Formats: sequence, structure tokens, C-alpha cells
Amino acid sequence: MDFPEYTGRELAEHIKAITGTSVNDTGALLRFFKHSRISKKQIIQQADRECTTLFFVVRGCLRMYFVDSKGVERTTQFALENWWLTDFLAFERKQRTEFAIQAVEPAEVLSIDHNAYQSLLAAFSQMERYFRIIYQYGYGAALLRMKYQQDFSREELYRHFARQFPDFVQRVPQYLLASYLDITPEYLSELRKKRS
Amino acid sequence: MDFPEYTGRELAEHIKAITGTSVNDTGALLRFFKHSRISKKQIIQQADRECTTLFFVVRGCLRMYFVDSKGVERTTQFALENWWLTDFLAFERKQRTEFAIQAVEPAEVLSIDHNAYQSLLAAFSQMERYFRIIYQYGYGAALLRMKYQQDFSREELYRHFARQFPDFVQRVPQYLLASYLDITPEYLSELRKKRS
Repeated sequence: MDFPEYTGRELAEHIKAITGTSVNDTGALLRFFKHSRISKKQIIQQADRECTTLFFVVRGCLRMYFVDSKGVERTTQFALENWWLTDFLAFERKQRTEFAIQAVEPAEVLSIDHNAYQSLLAAFSQMERYFRIIYQYGYGAALLRMKYQQDFSREELYRHFARQFPDFVQRVPQYLLASYLDITPEYLSELRKKRS
Repeated sequence: MDFPEYTGRELAEHIKAITGTSVNDTGALLRFFKHSRISKKQIIQQADRECTTLFFVVRGCLRMYFVDSKGVERTTQFALENWWLTDFLAFERKQRTEFAIQAVEPAEVLSIDHNAYQSLLAAFSQMERYFRIIYQYGYGAALLRMKYQQDFSREELYRHFARQFPDFVQRVPQYLLASYLDITPEYLSELRKKRS
């Protein structure tokens, strides 16, 4: 590789920001992870395969999607820098997942497999706290998103999303954003024009 | 009260089942919680108020719902025995919640406020692990539910739900189950007849 060795700075900083406590030994922490660079559109988790890996986004953007009964790809979740992504249920149970995970942009990720994850949690008690907070937010945000999906018109949903994540709306390809909001790319394009 | 003092048995057993470790001092753990009996339809969290309480269901059933823009109550989440319920995002941030929480049946709950929750986590490191696992499952299940809601017909959604939670489908009032599945009570009644 032409790249310098990954220092773990982003992960260590995120752990400190979330838990309020510095990581004592970032090197030791990092040994539980594999660091890799992935290209745009590369699939790092196949659907219908066992889900044994949890991903942390150092740089770039991932998405988790499924192919619906009509053969259309539907994006359920995005992950930008400092976000964690996997099918958390299948990962915990080491089961087959119904989702695939793909890079939306060229990305740099840390990945940890199920067994290393258990060892990490045993070795660094701080990480239980870290993931407890991460998942508590993720769970809460998912419940709130269900409310918005039921309650908001598609236009309101887009406006809300654009207000909350303005950079994200600029950054993600429009056909993927449309799939996430469950609208057609044409309708999304109309909504964007209306705003300007 | 006519009832014997609550011993915390259900919570202690659940912590052991989830973390694999017994609680050393259930009495000390329990002091962070308030135990109460609530009647059917009683509202224990009002919408549009600050959300400062997390609930554990000892017995009975709770639901978290919102009133949509047409004035219709929509149920986003149920909680049966050993489930935790709150607006996790608003609870973590001590913010106003858009959800209300109500007893579906006469219920017995443990409640813990935001400050006591932080103290509990500081006092019992095992609880970081416990909640980390609880929320990891909750988050994973919520993402999977989004997929089912996008991918399944209403009939498939009902069948799937009835297979996964047969007792629950018998137990919850049909108009609430219909609201959770986003179908009319009449259509739910049709689906139930089709099966028999």
C-alpha cells in the first residue's frame, strides 16, 4: 500500500467525544480492527450471506440496502464519517442478513468481526458505554424516523431531512436519496427546484 | 399499598439472561427505580413534554404513539414484559418528545429518570453492557422493520408479525394492532378470518 499506516485518530476522537473519556491505548484498540480502503460502488456485505462484520466509516459514505420484491434497490440506512453500520440483529446473532452494504463514495473503513467485537468489549469496558450510547441514539432515531414516514407528506419528509442533514443532501447521489425517502428521482428533482 | 414490596426479581433475571452475569445487589440496583402500578389506558408520558423517564415493563403492555396530522393515533412501538420503552433520543437529550406512552393493559412498571439512569450506569458497569445489548437489538429490529414496511404487502406484514409474535397478536386490542401495522381495523379483521 502507498498509504501510511492508519493511526486510529478518528475512532479515538469519536470515542472521547461520545464517552467523555480518552482511549488509553489506541494502538491496542486498533488491533481488533481491519483498516481498508474501498472503491465507489464496492459491496462489502452481500445480502443472503452470514453477517459477521461491523463497519466504522473513517472517510466516505456507505449505504445499507435491499432489493425489493419488484427487483428495485431500496436504501434503508446511510453511514457517513464516524457512523457504524451493519445489520445489527443479524450481526449479533451471526445470522444471514437480508441487507447488502455498499460504498456510495470511495471510502475508508474499519471493520471488526463478531468474535473480535466480543473480545474488544471484554478488553475495553469503555467500549460497552460507547456502543450503548451509539445504539441508544440509533434506536431512538429509527423510531422517530418511523413516525416521520407515517406522518409527513413526501415533501415534508424531504424538507425535514434537508434541514437536518444539509451536507448530506448535497453529497449523496440523488437517485439514492430518492430511494431512501421512498420517492421517485423525478419527484425529488421537482422538490429541489421548488426550494431554489 | 396492598401489594408486597417489589423485589426486582424480573429485572434481575432479565439482566442475568442478557449479560450472562448475576446482579450482586438487586436491592441497591432497585433504589434507582420507582415501582408503580398503572391502570389500563393511563398515560405515563405526555406528548409535547420533556421526556425524562425510561420505563421497564414488569407486567402488562405499554405502547408509544403519536397523533398524526389528521388527528389519528398511530402506534409506533409496543412494549411487553421485560421490554424498555421511551423516546430514546428525547430521553438522552432531555428534550420534548413527540410521542406519548400509555398502558394498553393494567401494568406494573419500573421507571427511572434521566439523572438516576446516569447514576445507575456509573454505579453498575454491568448495566452499560446490558443496555448496549438491549439497544443493539432494538436498533437492528427497527431497521429490519423499515425494510418489511417498504417491502411487504399489508397482508404479508400481518402474517409475518403473527408468526413472530403469536401471543402478542392475541393479546393486543385489534384496533391498536391495526394502527401499528398501518391498516384499518376492518382489513385486519378480514385478514384474521382468512387465516382461520
